[in-house]
Amino acid sequence: MSDTPPKSNASKPQTQPNRKGGSKKKGADASMRITPRDEDYARWYTDCIQKGELADYSPVRGCMVIRPHGFAVWERIREILDRHIKDTGHVNAYFPMFIPKSFLAKEAKHVEGFAMECAVVTHSGLEKTPEGDLAVCGKLEEELVVRPTSETIINHMFAKWVESYRDLPLLINQWANVVRWEMRTRLFLRTAEFLWQEGHTAHATPAEADEEARKMLEVYRRFAHETLALSVITGEKTEAERFAGADHTYTIEGMMQDRRALQAGTSHDLGQNFSRAFDIRFQNAEGELEYAWQTSWGVSTRLVGAVIMAHSDDKGLVLPPRIAPIHVVLIPIYRKDAEKERVLEAVTTIAQQLRDRDLSVEVDDRDHLKPGAKYYEWEKKGVPLRLEVGPRDLDKDQVFSARRDTGEKAPIPLAGLETSVTSLLDQIQADLLEKNRVFRETHTYPAETYADLRSVVEGEGGFVLARWCGNPDCETRIKEETKATIRCLPEDLPDDPGPCILCQSESVQRVIFSRAY
Amino acid sequence: MSDTPPKSNASKPQTQPNRKGGSKKKGADASMRITPRDEDYARWYTDCIQKGELADYSPVRGCMVIRPHGFAVWERIREILDRHIKDTGHVNAYFPMFIPKSFLAKEAKHVEGFAMECAVVTHSGLEKTPEGDLAVCGKLEEELVVRPTSETIINHMFAKWVESYRDLPLLINQWANVVRWEMRTRLFLRTAEFLWQEGHTAHATPAEADEEARKMLEVYRRFAHETLALSVITGEKTEAERFAGADHTYTIEGMMQDRRALQAGTSHDLGQNFSRAFDIRFQNAEGELEYAWQTSWGVSTRLVGAVIMAHSDDKGLVLPPRIAPIHVVLIPIYRKDAEKERVLEAVTTIAQQLRDRDLSVEVDDRDHLKPGAKYYEWEKKGVPLRLEVGPRDLDKDQVFSARRDTGEKAPIPLAGLETSVTSLLDQIQADLLEKNRVFRETHTYPAETYADLRSVVEGEGGFVLARWCGNPDCETRIKEETKATIRCLPEDLPDDPGPCILCQSESVQRVIFSRAY
Repeated sequence: MSDTPPKSNASKPQTQPNRKGGSKKKGADASMRITPRDEDYARWYTDCIQKGELADYSPVRGCMVIRPHGFAVWERIREILDRHIKDTGHVNAYFPMFIPKSFLAKEAKHVEGFAMECAVVTHSGLEKTPEGDLAVCGKLEEELVVRPTSETIINHMFAKWVESYRDLPLLINQWANVVRWEMRTRLFLRTAEFLWQEGHTAHATPAEADEEARKMLEVYRRFAHETLALSVITGEKTEAERFAGADHTYTIEGMMQDRRALQAGTSHDLGQNFSRAFDIRFQNAEGELEYAWQTSWGVSTRLVGAVIMAHSDDKGLVLPPRIAPIHVVLIPIYRKDAEKERVLEAVTTIAQQLRDRDLSVEVDDRDHLKPGAKYYEWEKKGVPLRLEVGPRDLDKDQVFSARRDTGEKAPIPLAGLETSVTSLLDQIQADLLEKNRVFRETHTYPAETYADLRSVVEGEGGFVLARWCGNPDCETRIKEETKATIRCLPEDLPDDPGPCILCQSESVQRVIFSRAY
Repeated sequence: MSDTPPKSNASKPQTQPNRKGGSKKKGADASMRITPRDEDYARWYTDCIQKGELADYSPVRGCMVIRPHGFAVWERIREILDRHIKDTGHVNAYFPMFIPKSFLAKEAKHVEGFAMECAVVTHSGLEKTPEGDLAVCGKLEEELVVRPTSETIINHMFAKWVESYRDLPLLINQWANVVRWEMRTRLFLRTAEFLWQEGHTAHATPAEADEEARKMLEVYRRFAHETLALSVITGEKTEAERFAGADHTYTIEGMMQDRRALQAGTSHDLGQNFSRAFDIRFQNAEGELEYAWQTSWGVSTRLVGAVIMAHSDDKGLVLPPRIAPIHVVLIPIYRKDAEKERVLEAVTTIAQQLRDRDLSVEVDDRDHLKPGAKYYEWEKKGVPLRLEVGPRDLDKDQVFSARRDTGEKAPIPLAGLETSVTSLLDQIQADLLEKNRVFRETHTYPAETYADLRSVVEGEGGFVLARWCGNPDCETRIKEETKATIRCLPEDLPDDPGPCILCQSESVQRVIFSRAY
């Protein structure tokens, strides 16, 4: 990957205690230190991921390994979002990951958008050369592209399945891996291969398709708010930022801690672009043939990157409770053997009480590590709540808690502990969202002049609310000069006529400019 | 795919009523007929899948589309098996689907086994030619193979993660798509791309690795019995049938209705073959460096094919309740409007009662189809239990049930309906397993002479229990002459010395010969 870390700790970490799943950890030595955000933000982000054991670099350019702790986060995201997708009437299916080259070419803008980042399979085998090397063999008649997205192959199948208006709407989702050969990659945020879900639907009317695209945007917005604690804003993309082949692209955009934007999910109104390219026609109630109206929408493992960048701190990962693989870590505190038995017994009881409430609990009873080393390790891994169980607290019928997000420490009475812990986790979830909302709003600035816009995006960063005339030339020049793009035309902003921030032409509304990931 | 169906019904099915997810159906017209097993077994199998809407042919050679009904079966399989895999201490992760060509070559037998079926990515883009075609561009420095299995890439990472005996065991599983470029493909049973899980583990001792390989075989056996109602047998493969790179391969083998064997899952003791190839060394408790001992194990979407071939009949799919996407279909029966209201009200109440028991219930209240057409359709889709709700039965405080597996019809009292239905589904699950066991045992024959063996495998088919001397030459000749392979050395068979079925040399035990999928 282009942001390959220094060799020093990337290849062979220190010998560390046994944890299943290849987790490796040790006390607070230098190589395990998280680079502070102020020192090197990009490095901090990578440290959070590697030292929090979410992911690792792979030997394949631009591809990463999602380690068990990181994959458990993705499993939680997938499970919750899958329920939302099914609750809104969609069903899952699976389509081939290979797409015939000719399919990609069928929709003109689509192929333009993706052709240069496609992994292409040209052969079906390898054979030993006389020199003992392996050479490709079995040249394919038609090259196959590894799906960068599946509109083409899915819509080819839709054309087989759709005949009548009674077959509509067709509401299908797929969880899959996709490949986009990006030049600059970054763990989770932009990798050559990534995991995602892609919804693909077909409808009888344009109104119904647009309603679907907006409905799924709302599903994403709610999911980001309620599950990821990301206070994203929603809006439509400009033509320049649209999905290749869409009539309208809607987006959710979050603000990261370096005040840059991150596109966290998109929903596209595809109009009839693909139905015309793939001949998806249906007989309407009047017996006439019409092309279907379509949408597609997706979110990916990029969401994990967004969560990390939005919530984590200089101690490492901060994970919202709803997607944290471990909700609570229990640390037994004792010095003498007599204390040990009593403490471990209490820890076992507490763990069971919490698990009975469907909480995921880790008991860290490793003997060879001091409590401080354990705190340090679980903080790096983002566990939302730590409970320390020692004899003095037990004497007072309490345990001692430490919140990962705020660092706040307080005793919690043993009586009603499950309820207190559940409430505290809910509070952490709510506080993370609120903190992210306040941060975004604090760093969102109206700008009346181009100089104002530049001073924000070229300075501390943030979202700039500025008028834009709708001319792509102005958009392009601002991007070239400031590296800021129009993130979206915000949905809930009232019209506010005035001069374009660049060319002074009459403009209807404000849009959001920002540098972005 | 090589068993491409006749054009007549593959491309455009008839116009059919609206069901979400692209499902299409209609009354009993000729094109919807399932070919009987006796007429054409291969055709019957394909009909069950296509007309039961589990999967469809794709435009990509050897790749299939798993339709929503089929994917829902796979989701149930995945969910249940994933729980077993986690309960036995494993964690999920995700590794890149691309493998550098040079990695594949590191283990000599492994590359021999897979090189000729690898999809090879050679380029990272497509560009327009002056003629307006798309040509490959961006030649890669090193070709990438789409994983046929992930030992090589995963063990490369293990070498990074394992240092000390404290890092062991490393117990990792991955759910992923893999590609093997097979010449002859068949829906679910053998496709170029398929979905699977692959476990990969590393251990400190050979005994522990072998124990792991056997433990996971037992997980598969129990899963096949309890969830898929497949009465598989277990045993070790011969050297000729081993996984490329394993020291020992253990297998579960089922018998299909044409009395051929189907390998449904395998678990491999890899010894130190990959740890030596990828340099996975750990410091043992004595401070010495040792190569790790490893296993890998997997099952795939082939299981869906096994379930279909084992249980379905001439009316179409028969799905075991534990993996059926729909447990119960409710059909309201009425003639007059006055009846309709009463019947639909009862149906709604019953549906809710059953859903409260976590049953998946479909209410088929379509007005334009007669009950008979509905029965026919849900039978094809393999729904285990149909409940007909009509005024005459309601007068008697009962509904009328029809089992999909036996066709048995009987009234069920409304009082305690949920409990009766749950018991009935359990009974269906148990009966399917028992039927499969009896079928397998009935068609398993001891053979003392080669002529006996041939008369079974070249005749009606079945499992033949015959002595084999252990010489691969005998195994090869029997395979060439009869197309029967040694499916396994059964685990629970006592030694039974005597002459080899072919060469008459002294043999220790009997093995199972059969033609296989």
